[in-house]
Amino acid sequence: MTGVLVVGVGMTTFGKFLNRGIKSLSSEAVAAALADSGLRAGDVEFAAVGNAMAGLITGQECIRGQVVLRECGIGAIPIVNVENACASSSTAFHVAWQAVASGAVDIALAVGVEKLTHEDKTVSLKAFGGAVDVELSTGKPGGGTSIGGATETPSRSVFMDLYAASVRAHIQQFGMTKEQMAMVTVKNRRFGALNPYAQHRQPVTVQQVLNDRVIAEPLTRMMCSSIGDGAAATILMSASAASTRGLRNRPRVLASVLTSGSLPASDLPSAERRAVLSAYELAGVGPADLDVVEVHDAASPAELMAYEEIGLCEPGEGGTLIESGATDLGGRCPVNTSGGLVARGHPVGATGLAQICELAWQLRGRCGSRQVDEARLALAQNGGGSLGNDTAAQVVTILAR
Amino acid sequence: MTGVLVVGVGMTTFGKFLNRGIKSLSSEAVAAALADSGLRAGDVEFAAVGNAMAGLITGQECIRGQVVLRECGIGAIPIVNVENACASSSTAFHVAWQAVASGAVDIALAVGVEKLTHEDKTVSLKAFGGAVDVELSTGKPGGGTSIGGATETPSRSVFMDLYAASVRAHIQQFGMTKEQMAMVTVKNRRFGALNPYAQHRQPVTVQQVLNDRVIAEPLTRMMCSSIGDGAAATILMSASAASTRGLRNRPRVLASVLTSGSLPASDLPSAERRAVLSAYELAGVGPADLDVVEVHDAASPAELMAYEEIGLCEPGEGGTLIESGATDLGGRCPVNTSGGLVARGHPVGATGLAQICELAWQLRGRCGSRQVDEARLALAQNGGGSLGNDTAAQVVTILAR
Repeated sequence: MTGVLVVGVGMTTFGKFLNRGIKSLSSEAVAAALADSGLRAGDVEFAAVGNAMAGLITGQECIRGQVVLRECGIGAIPIVNVENACASSSTAFHVAWQAVASGAVDIALAVGVEKLTHEDKTVSLKAFGGAVDVELSTGKPGGGTSIGGATETPSRSVFMDLYAASVRAHIQQFGMTKEQMAMVTVKNRRFGALNPYAQHRQPVTVQQVLNDRVIAEPLTRMMCSSIGDGAAATILMSASAASTRGLRNRPRVLASVLTSGSLPASDLPSAERRAVLSAYELAGVGPADLDVVEVHDAASPAELMAYEEIGLCEPGEGGTLIESGATDLGGRCPVNTSGGLVARGHPVGATGLAQICELAWQLRGRCGSRQVDEARLALAQNGGGSLGNDTAAQVVTILAR
Repeated sequence: MTGVLVVGVGMTTFGKFLNRGIKSLSSEAVAAALADSGLRAGDVEFAAVGNAMAGLITGQECIRGQVVLRECGIGAIPIVNVENACASSSTAFHVAWQAVASGAVDIALAVGVEKLTHEDKTVSLKAFGGAVDVELSTGKPGGGTSIGGATETPSRSVFMDLYAASVRAHIQQFGMTKEQMAMVTVKNRRFGALNPYAQHRQPVTVQQVLNDRVIAEPLTRMMCSSIGDGAAATILMSASAASTRGLRNRPRVLASVLTSGSLPASDLPSAERRAVLSAYELAGVGPADLDVVEVHDAASPAELMAYEEIGLCEPGEGGTLIESGATDLGGRCPVNTSGGLVARGHPVGATGLAQICELAWQLRGRCGSRQVDEARLALAQNGGGSLGNDTAAQVVTILAR
């Protein structure tokens, strides 16, 4: 397979933008990624566009990519609309990477966009109910447009209940503490304060996190990612084309691995763990080689569990690892320097590419006061949806400078 | 790139199945495709799942592929959910083909599924409004969940208005007649009667078609594809793996081309025409070489226009071509032997792969009383969505035995 470089990245600030649509958000991110690579819209040969929920939130159920890319001056090329819930845009990255790695094209665009805010907040919250098995949650063969299960006017995303349940199980087995979970929010809010693209830029204390409103025991509001809007984009290019265009020093893709949850009777490791192990094998590296990492902290304890899945520590030692400072700036391997989902924000279908943006900037030394010294090897882990006892989709990407 | 074969195909009967969901439909089609190839669920290494409207119709907005494939005993592999409106499943075929052609995997599955029927028919009709630019059709930045533009309780799909307008323009320029359009329905209904998978199996006369209720001038009801449900699946395999497994005589993919509509100011040919020309170039064939063709007759006059785009005749001569019998059984190049969208049915996200199923069966001599003698080269054309003056997506596939 052809070597592939991430030659340009760009994103919008994440936040609540009730009056902006997916076209406005995407075109800002795409323009930034094109400018970063020195390319023009007409240079793009293939595009994959990731979005999870525009159908339920805006009514744009189909041809989302064509609609947003037309706004960017991009048409008459292959455009694939892809979806994998919260892993939609890392999946778009994977499909765009495959188009370049296969030799089919030299220049591919991956875009992730999500507009979650809606005048009626329950529309946003209900939309998350479409990322689990709807036939099961509604009890209706064929599902039904009245989605979201028993809770007709939900006060939170179904995912916070799912995260809370897995955290309680982890606490039972290993004894992770609420203080350790709060420390994730504190670290990530501190990073968010240093990232101009982050949704939450106010630092908080452990006590503030613990005293906040309980969303689903043991998760408080500040431990949960918020509803938000945003877009992110990356340009992938074959190594040979990048050489010709003077872009050979941009980050290289060492691995892009997509997998899905295992079947009910399976004794396979989690999708997250399998994706991580495959990515290490493809890249020829291990956890000790990583300099900077972005993980899917949709709720802050998920970051501690991700430390364990990625192998930054042994199972059950995620809490101890954050206490040691190893994942903070100056530590062995800083995690979520963007602020992560908890602070940078989590506009579902934009999150995976926002992780890639942050890692590309880290590898290029562009992160200012949150820069990791001598960052050479970076990993992103992005999960999506829930099915049975596993996530529905997991994507792990490894980049190197 | 690696040679790729279509080693197994399968589909459900198309029709209105109010009490079946996307899981039930998909698992029937996937089981049939696996059986046809002699493979087991565990052999599949990659899957692309196409669906257009399950979000709005069933609430299953995300992870549609993971939900339906779990029912088939498929998990723990890369699953990409893809969407390109009415071209969703030919896009899934394209993405699965790319995974095999690139050498990434040996065995890939493409699935297309759509459940359009709903207790409230306006829900189904409104869903089509999500395959045009919603910000434009609703006049709201960011769209809005009240979709479908001005018509809150539509009596037809917005696409029948779009088709009617393009047909009126074609009549103005070239003089296509209503009788010629009706002849498409008559031919396709005759084929439908011979296809056990078809939704409409009653032959009709030109007079019956012309006398039917007008949907949008000049289209009568029998000229329009109906709302329906169904699923189709194909198994793609590298030529080397097919050889090992005794499947080397299955149809080969000579070309799989995806493109999107051009930009407003462009003077490029239509997306359909561009996809056709690229496919001919990749396959090293031309229209005179084709033995059997499936085209996107969402409304019957679109079949006549497709004859012209594919080059089966000169521009403006589609009407004369159907009158000559050239596209009927025994003619130079039979078109839509499955019954096409008008008779086999058009469950949006299943249509593209249903075309591939029919062509694979034709190339393997499995079509009984609708079999084309000595069919060796086949082409499928599948369009999706509408944006500006062009379709949003077009996929053209060329297969050979």
